[in-house]
Amino acid sequence: MNAEIIAIGSELLTPHRMDTNSLFLTAKLNELGVEVSFKTVVGDRRADLVSTARIALARADVVIFMGGLGPTEDDLTRECVAETLGRKLQRHARIVEDLRARFASRGWKMSENNERQADVITGADVLENKRGSAPGQFIHINDENGNAIIILLPGPPHELKAMFEEQCLPRLQTLLPRQSIAARELKVAMIGESMADKRAAPIYKAHPLVETTILAGSPGEVQFHLRARAESLEEAQKRVDTLATALEDEFDDAVFASNGESMEQIVGYYLGMRSATLAAAESCTGGMLAERITSVPGSSRYFLGGAVVYDNSLKSELAGVPAILIAEHGAVSSQVAAALAEGIRTRCKTTFGIGITGIAGPGGGSEEKPVGLVFHALANGKNTEVVERKFPGDRDRIRQWATQQALDMVRRKLMG
Amino acid sequence: MNAEIIAIGSELLTPHRMDTNSLFLTAKLNELGVEVSFKTVVGDRRADLVSTARIALARADVVIFMGGLGPTEDDLTRECVAETLGRKLQRHARIVEDLRARFASRGWKMSENNERQADVITGADVLENKRGSAPGQFIHINDENGNAIIILLPGPPHELKAMFEEQCLPRLQTLLPRQSIAARELKVAMIGESMADKRAAPIYKAHPLVETTILAGSPGEVQFHLRARAESLEEAQKRVDTLATALEDEFDDAVFASNGESMEQIVGYYLGMRSATLAAAESCTGGMLAERITSVPGSSRYFLGGAVVYDNSLKSELAGVPAILIAEHGAVSSQVAAALAEGIRTRCKTTFGIGITGIAGPGGGSEEKPVGLVFHALANGKNTEVVERKFPGDRDRIRQWATQQALDMVRRKLMG
Repeated sequence: MNAEIIAIGSELLTPHRMDTNSLFLTAKLNELGVEVSFKTVVGDRRADLVSTARIALARADVVIFMGGLGPTEDDLTRECVAETLGRKLQRHARIVEDLRARFASRGWKMSENNERQADVITGADVLENKRGSAPGQFIHINDENGNAIIILLPGPPHELKAMFEEQCLPRLQTLLPRQSIAARELKVAMIGESMADKRAAPIYKAHPLVETTILAGSPGEVQFHLRARAESLEEAQKRVDTLATALEDEFDDAVFASNGESMEQIVGYYLGMRSATLAAAESCTGGMLAERITSVPGSSRYFLGGAVVYDNSLKSELAGVPAILIAEHGAVSSQVAAALAEGIRTRCKTTFGIGITGIAGPGGGSEEKPVGLVFHALANGKNTEVVERKFPGDRDRIRQWATQQALDMVRRKLMG
Repeated sequence: MNAEIIAIGSELLTPHRMDTNSLFLTAKLNELGVEVSFKTVVGDRRADLVSTARIALARADVVIFMGGLGPTEDDLTRECVAETLGRKLQRHARIVEDLRARFASRGWKMSENNERQADVITGADVLENKRGSAPGQFIHINDENGNAIIILLPGPPHELKAMFEEQCLPRLQTLLPRQSIAARELKVAMIGESMADKRAAPIYKAHPLVETTILAGSPGEVQFHLRARAESLEEAQKRVDTLATALEDEFDDAVFASNGESMEQIVGYYLGMRSATLAAAESCTGGMLAERITSVPGSSRYFLGGAVVYDNSLKSELAGVPAILIAEHGAVSSQVAAALAEGIRTRCKTTFGIGITGIAGPGGGSEEKPVGLVFHALANGKNTEVVERKFPGDRDRIRQWATQQALDMVRRKLMG
């Protein structure tokens, strides 16, 4: 079974907007055993839309149209799909009433063009829209012309996702051959994508029944997406788990997530387990590390806070770094990184203290201390570990690399 | 003139990856007066690729293929486009030599499959790839079958962008009718998208020669993209500027950028102009404000640093908030926000101090202090301004709203 996903709307053909709904739909269709063969974006022109629908119906078993279901003249999806199928549109009185009630409940009068949203293609199931005004439609064709499933969904992501999950999935599960699919996502830290692929390739090639995709995440993160199908979920899960274990053996403690968790979630999880707390003093990352850690709900249990010490005076004032250390070794040095970690730990009274100092660029580099040079320190009161790295990329990527390195040091310390 | 952009690669039909090159190409094509009518994503299957090429050549004047130019068996773009056009592929000796030299310079031996990258469609210009191995191709057809431009580009964004700008743009400028296009992007702060549209609609509708697109940026930012075409660049610019001025009159000091600048760039610009400095004490935003400010290169001139005061003890320890104030009013209160701003300003010896405290959720809300409630304070040593807001959305959006509000307070103070 294969699918085509069609996004409709001239705004999706500008430089400012793009279809992202199709990623959600692709994940859901794959889980049902349906591969996506084509994705198409088309504007609000009748002729373009009809020809797109015609082409899609000829080459895909499942065709999903997204958008163009609203009340305006530009919303042509209903009409064009009906024309392509050679079917009629009928205005449903109940939907018109629902629309009127929806407007009335907000104290608005409904303009007549809104009634177009109640036009239903002959033979289609109406998909109720609990989060917006335009209903969707579900058409199952099974006749001498063949077998096809055609779905019309509204464009706004929260309307589309809810409608698909609540009303399309159950219908598709009934209509499509039953398959069981298991998936897992492993992540490794601080290894390059090509090196990760080189080491992983002999392993995943020995497991041809598992589909493996290797992707570079944010700097310092490589993802292994594993997916297997089988008659039973148990068998599919076993295939995925066997490969996952083999990859974990190869990458050992570089594997930080075995089910798609983020680095900051994992670090939070370990800190919580150990009832440990953390504080950070950041120079070149300028708050990015704290921002990542506090993006996790509940992080206040283990992250007390810290300082952004961009200016050298603040390295002393907020993190207690002796000014003489900065004068002697420079702000970007292993000595200052260690003093930041130790100072912020003492000041914040935490189990661990992190210090980061480096040169994010584009300016400020020298031959001795080039752009990309970063010192990361982790202090626990007994000893202080410092890692020096030279990261590639632009300002943003260097800062992301540095936060990942620092988080990975905390993770390794807590695991060890 | 219209275009179709085709992205090739089975990985672009998974839930994990999407084509983003087409946004860049759309912007460039629009500047040349070419509208994009269709975008298609197709996998690495020969039959699918040939049918996609056939359909595109029938409906578009300019067809751009991206990806599938590498050395592997899966890289079929050259062959399939040649087949569709009824032309031959010829292996170019000079390109083979260039490829060999490229490998040799890295001390590698080139495997034979790499030679496939030297296969050129009859009549095509070779587009040299300075950043990768696969060259592109540019074909201009002007015969009894009509007029068409066909471009083959490599998939990696940095290779594609450089090749298009350096080698395709000059060719297209020669082949396409000359047009002048002017564009501007205004941004307004802390106004909702629908309200912004309501106020702007009567104005931009009175300027039908300027194409206007309204987009919601990150929380607290709405963008007006203006674009006009005319015989002369002067005339196009005048049309855009006239509408921009009318919108600036309507939105007054809510307009923070008149040429697409980010809020953090604008705040940095104003601080630099006034030789003023800034420090921040953040609770619920957890470093996000500092991260935004320091994402701007050169921000060390005006941003000295600050504190992330997640834990209440740190609000006192790092930002000098009296513990009694927290006990009396709660950590999320206008009093504590003001004390954070004043305390961090004193501690960091800056012109301005910002304090942010609120409830980002999902937990921690109450009837009196719900999730989304945030207090923002700005202190300058003479007086302290506090703004209380209740933001919608999830944890991430609430934090983004709060940083935007705080930056906007600094901007308004510096303008006033």
